[in-house]
Amino acid sequence: MPSERQLRREIVCFGRMLHERGYVASTDGNLSVRLDSRRILATPTSMSKGLMRPSDLVIVDMAGRRLTGRRDVSTEIGMHLLIYKLRPDVQGIVHAHPTTATGYAAAGLPLTQPLVSEIVIGLGCIPLAEYGTPGTPECWQTLAPLIPQYDAILMSNHGVVTYGEDVQSAYMKMETVEHFAKIALITHLLGHQQELGTQEIEKLMVARSKYQGAKSAAPMPVQALNGGQSGNNHGRPRAPEAARSRSARTLTRQR
Amino acid sequence: MPSERQLRREIVCFGRMLHERGYVASTDGNLSVRLDSRRILATPTSMSKGLMRPSDLVIVDMAGRRLTGRRDVSTEIGMHLLIYKLRPDVQGIVHAHPTTATGYAAAGLPLTQPLVSEIVIGLGCIPLAEYGTPGTPECWQTLAPLIPQYDAILMSNHGVVTYGEDVQSAYMKMETVEHFAKIALITHLLGHQQELGTQEIEKLMVARSKYQGAKSAAPMPVQALNGGQSGNNHGRPRAPEAARSRSARTLTRQR
Amino acid sequence: MPSERQLRREIVCFGRMLHERGYVASTDGNLSVRLDSRRILATPTSMSKGLMRPSDLVIVDMAGRRLTGRRDVSTEIGMHLLIYKLRPDVQGIVHAHPTTATGYAAAGLPLTQPLVSEIVIGLGCIPLAEYGTPGTPECWQTLAPLIPQYDAILMSNHGVVTYGEDVQSAYMKMETVEHFAKIALITHLLGHQQELGTQEIEKLMVARSKYQGAKSAAPMPVQALNGGQSGNNHGRPRAPEAARSRSARTLTRQR
Amino acid sequence: MPSERQLRREIVCFGRMLHERGYVASTDGNLSVRLDSRRILATPTSMSKGLMRPSDLVIVDMAGRRLTGRRDVSTEIGMHLLIYKLRPDVQGIVHAHPTTATGYAAAGLPLTQPLVSEIVIGLGCIPLAEYGTPGTPECWQTLAPLIPQYDAILMSNHGVVTYGEDVQSAYMKMETVEHFAKIALITHLLGHQQELGTQEIEKLMVARSKYQGAKSAAPMPVQALNGGQSGNNHGRPRAPEAARSRSARTLTRQR
Repeated sequence: MPSERQLRREIVCFGRMLHERGYVASTDGNLSVRLDSRRILATPTSMSKGLMRPSDLVIVDMAGRRLTGRRDVSTEIGMHLLIYKLRPDVQGIVHAHPTTATGYAAAGLPLTQPLVSEIVIGLGCIPLAEYGTPGTPECWQTLAPLIPQYDAILMSNHGVVTYGEDVQSAYMKMETVEHFAKIALITHLLGHQQELGTQEIEKLMVARSKYQGAKSAAPMPVQALNGGQSGNNHGRPRAPEAARSRSARTLTRQR
Repeated sequence: MPSERQLRREIVCFGRMLHERGYVASTDGNLSVRLDSRRILATPTSMSKGLMRPSDLVIVDMAGRRLTGRRDVSTEIGMHLLIYKLRPDVQGIVHAHPTTATGYAAAGLPLTQPLVSEIVIGLGCIPLAEYGTPGTPECWQTLAPLIPQYDAILMSNHGVVTYGEDVQSAYMKMETVEHFAKIALITHLLGHQQELGTQEIEKLMVARSKYQGAKSAAPMPVQALNGGQSGNNHGRPRAPEAARSRSARTLTRQR
Repeated sequence: MPSERQLRREIVCFGRMLHERGYVASTDGNLSVRLDSRRILATPTSMSKGLMRPSDLVIVDMAGRRLTGRRDVSTEIGMHLLIYKLRPDVQGIVHAHPTTATGYAAAGLPLTQPLVSEIVIGLGCIPLAEYGTPGTPECWQTLAPLIPQYDAILMSNHGVVTYGEDVQSAYMKMETVEHFAKIALITHLLGHQQELGTQEIEKLMVARSKYQGAKSAAPMPVQALNGGQSGNNHGRPRAPEAARSRSARTLTRQR
Repeated sequence: MPSERQLRREIVCFGRMLHERGYVASTDGNLSVRLDSRRILATPTSMSKGLMRPSDLVIVDMAGRRLTGRRDVSTEIGMHLLIYKLRPDVQGIVHAHPTTATGYAAAGLPLTQPLVSEIVIGLGCIPLAEYGTPGTPECWQTLAPLIPQYDAILMSNHGVVTYGEDVQSAYMKMETVEHFAKIALITHLLGHQQELGTQEIEKLMVARSKYQGAKSAAPMPVQALNGGQSGNNHGRPRAPEAARSRSARTLTRQR
C-alpha cells in the first residue's frame, strides 16, 4: 500500500495527464483514491486538474464531509462515494470529459460495438448511463445499476467515469475509452464497420483470462446484448433486474 | 492582487499554452490583464505567443497608447479596451483561434446547443458575433452588444474571445469553448444530438450557483432562445434592444 | 551494434513516444529488438509503454521463454518471434494501435491508395491482414503471408505492426502508417482523392532507390494491384501462392 | 545577421517542433537557411527532423554540392535552391507534410477560400502546385510559376513548402497553413461555409499593410480569382503568363 504522500503525487500526476491530453478543459474532472475504510483522498472543486499541487487535495469521510484540506470538496464527490460503496475492490476513480467519448455521450450512443479486440478484452463494452443533473444524487443514481458490472461508463450529456484497483488503473481505462471512441468514430466516418462475430468474441473471453492487467468484470459485447446473463462477473453483486433491463435498453440504442 | 512581474509571467505561461495546444498559429492571438484603472498589460503584435518573454509585453493606457515596452501594440488592443470598459469585473482577456471553434465561426454557426451539462453550467451558450474587419472599430463594435452578457464569444470568420476575473480564468474559458466545439462536432459527425430539455437546463441553473468557479453571467440556452429575458444577469448592464435582437438572430441561426 | 543497455534505453524512449502520441492507450502495444541469434529483448505485458524503465524489459529465447527479467512476457511475443524468423534482416519491431490506422483496420480497409508520393516511396502500400485472436497463433499466422513482402501491416480489428533494421526504424514506420492514415481519411472526408497514376508510381520506384532510408521491400501500389509479380523484392522469400492471393484479395477490398 | 551556430540551433529547434506537432513523420521534411550569396545550411536526408543535432546539418553551394557535413544532402535540395534563386528576399525555407493540408494536396484541392480574416491577411490564398516526382527537377518546376507570388504552396500528393525572411518566419507560415486547413476542413464537415465577400477582402488588403509581420506578396483571394492582375506584388518578378494561367486553373478547381 503506497503512502498518502505517494498517492497525492499520483493523483497530481494523472490529473496533469488528463489535462495535457485534452480529457478535461478548465476545472473539469476529478480523481480520488480510497485511503482506508473511512477516508477518501480527492481533488478539490474549481481548480484545473493540470495545475494542482499535492497540498491542494482534500480528504473526506464516507459521507463526503471534509476532514482535511483548505480547498472545497467537489459536488461530484457523491458519485465517487457511491462507486466505493458498491465496489469494495475499487481503490481509485477518474472522472473526465474526453472529447470523442463525451461526443458519443452527448449523441446518446454507448460504445458497445465489438470493433477492436483489445478493447473487448480490456473493458468489454462501455455502456451509456442515463442523464442526471451533475453534482446531484439524480446523477449518480443513474450510474448505480451499471457500477457493479462495468469499470468504465459513459454519462449522457456529461462525460466518462472509470475506476480500478488504483488511480493509475482508473486513468488507463480512461485512456482506453477515449482511444476506442476515436477508433469507432473513424470507422463511422469511413462508412465501414467490420464487427467481430460471436465466435471471435467468445475466444476473446478466454484470452481475457490470460491478461494479467485485465481484471474488469465488464460483460463482453455478446453478453451485454444477451442481457448480461452469462458468467465472468468475478463475484460482484449483480445489478437489480429493473436497473439492468434499463441499462440493456440504453446499451442497444446504438444503430 | 499579484505583482506586475507575476502577471507578466502568467501571460507568458498562458500564451505558451495557447500555442502548444494549437489554439494559435504563427503570431496569432493576444492576451491582456488590467493592471489598474488606467493601465493594461498586453502581448505585443507580430510575435508568436508561444515564444514570448515577460519583457516582450507592452503597457498601454485606456486609449491604447503605449506607455512602456519596446515592441509594438497589437491592432486588436481596441477589442480589449472595449471589454474592460463594458465589464468592470473583467481583469483578464484571451483572444485566440482554436481550430474547431474557429471552424464554427467560419461556418457562421454559434455554439448554443445544450449538449453538455458542464458547458451549460460554465458558459451558458456561446454566441456568434457578426463579422467586422479585425483590428478596426468595425470588428469590436460587433462584439459590443454581446460583451455584457457573455464571457466567451465566437467572432465570425475570425476566432474566439474569452475573459474573466484574471488571465487564468479567461484562458480556461478558451479551453472550454474549444473543448465544447470538439464535442459538438463529434455529435454532428455521428448524426445524433441528444439535447438537454428545458427542465434539465433549469436544474442546471440551480447547479450553476453551487459551483465556486462559475461566475459567468451568460444566459443559459433556454434563456438565450427566449431572447435572454429572464434573470441571472449579475447586475450588469443589459445590451440595448436593437443590439440584442440582432444577437438573438445570430444565435438562432444554428439548425 | 549498440550495447544491451543502449537498446533498453531506446525501447523505453520509443515506448514513451508511442504513448505521448496516442498510438497506444493503457498497457497496449509492445516493442522488441533482436539481441543476437538466440535472444530477443522485449517489453513486458500489463504495463503502460509510456511509464517503463529499462529494468522492466524482459529477455526471451526464440521459443518465447523468459531468460531474464522479473516481469511477465507479453502473449504477443509469438508475433515478434515469427517476424524475426521470416525476416533475418529485421532487428526491431513495434506493435501499436494508432487510432486512425486502427480505424481503417476495424473498418476492414487496407491503406493501399497511391495518394502521397513519400508514402509510396517509403512503405509502398500497407496491406490488411485477416483477423485472428490476439496473443494466439491464429493471429500471427494471418500475418505470415504478408511479412516477407511488407514492412508495415494493418491487423484487422486490432492494430498495426512495423519492423526494420532497428527499433527506431520500426518506430518511424509506425509514424508513417498513422500519418498516411490521417491524410487518407482527410481525402475521404473531403470527398476527393487525386490518385497517382501508373506512370507516376513507376517513377517513384526509381526515386525509392535514391533514398538512403527506404530499404522496404514492400511492393508499390501498382505492383500490389498486379499481384506483386514484379521485382524489387530484395531477395526475400516470396509468400506462398495461396497466401499471397488471399492477401491480394484483402488488398483490393478498398473501394 | 545571426551566427551560423545560432542558425544551426534554430533549424534544430523548428525541426523538433515540426515533428512534435505531427507535421512530419519518420524522416520526412527539410529546412534550410541562406548563409550568404553562395552557401545554404540545410537538414540532411534520411534522418528524423525531431532527432537532429546542430552538427548533423550540411552546407551546400548554389548547385547543391556538399561543402561541409558528414551526412548526405537531401534529394529535395533542388527545390530549396530554386526558391532562393527566384526569391532574393527569402532567407529560410521549411518543407513538411502536415496531415490536414497534405490531405487537401492529395485531394487535389487548394486552400483558397476566404474563410478566416487573419489567413487572408497573412498568406492571401494558398495555391496547389501540380504533381511532379519528389526529388527531381519535374517536382520543383511545377512550383516555379507560383514561387514569385506566394509564400506558402501546397504540393499535389506530397506536402507543403513555406518560406520567409528567416527560418522562424517560414516555420510560422507552415503552422498557419495547417491551422487554416483544419479550420477549412471543419467548415466542410459542418456543411456550412460563410465566405468573406469581395468588399470584406478589399478591407483586409488595407489591414494587411498595418501588420508588421505580414510581408507576404501573396495575392488576396479576390485577386487570385481575377487572375492576380492587381497590385501588391512587392516588386517581385511576375510569373510568366502561361505559368500563371495554369496556376489560376488549379486555384479555381476548388468547389
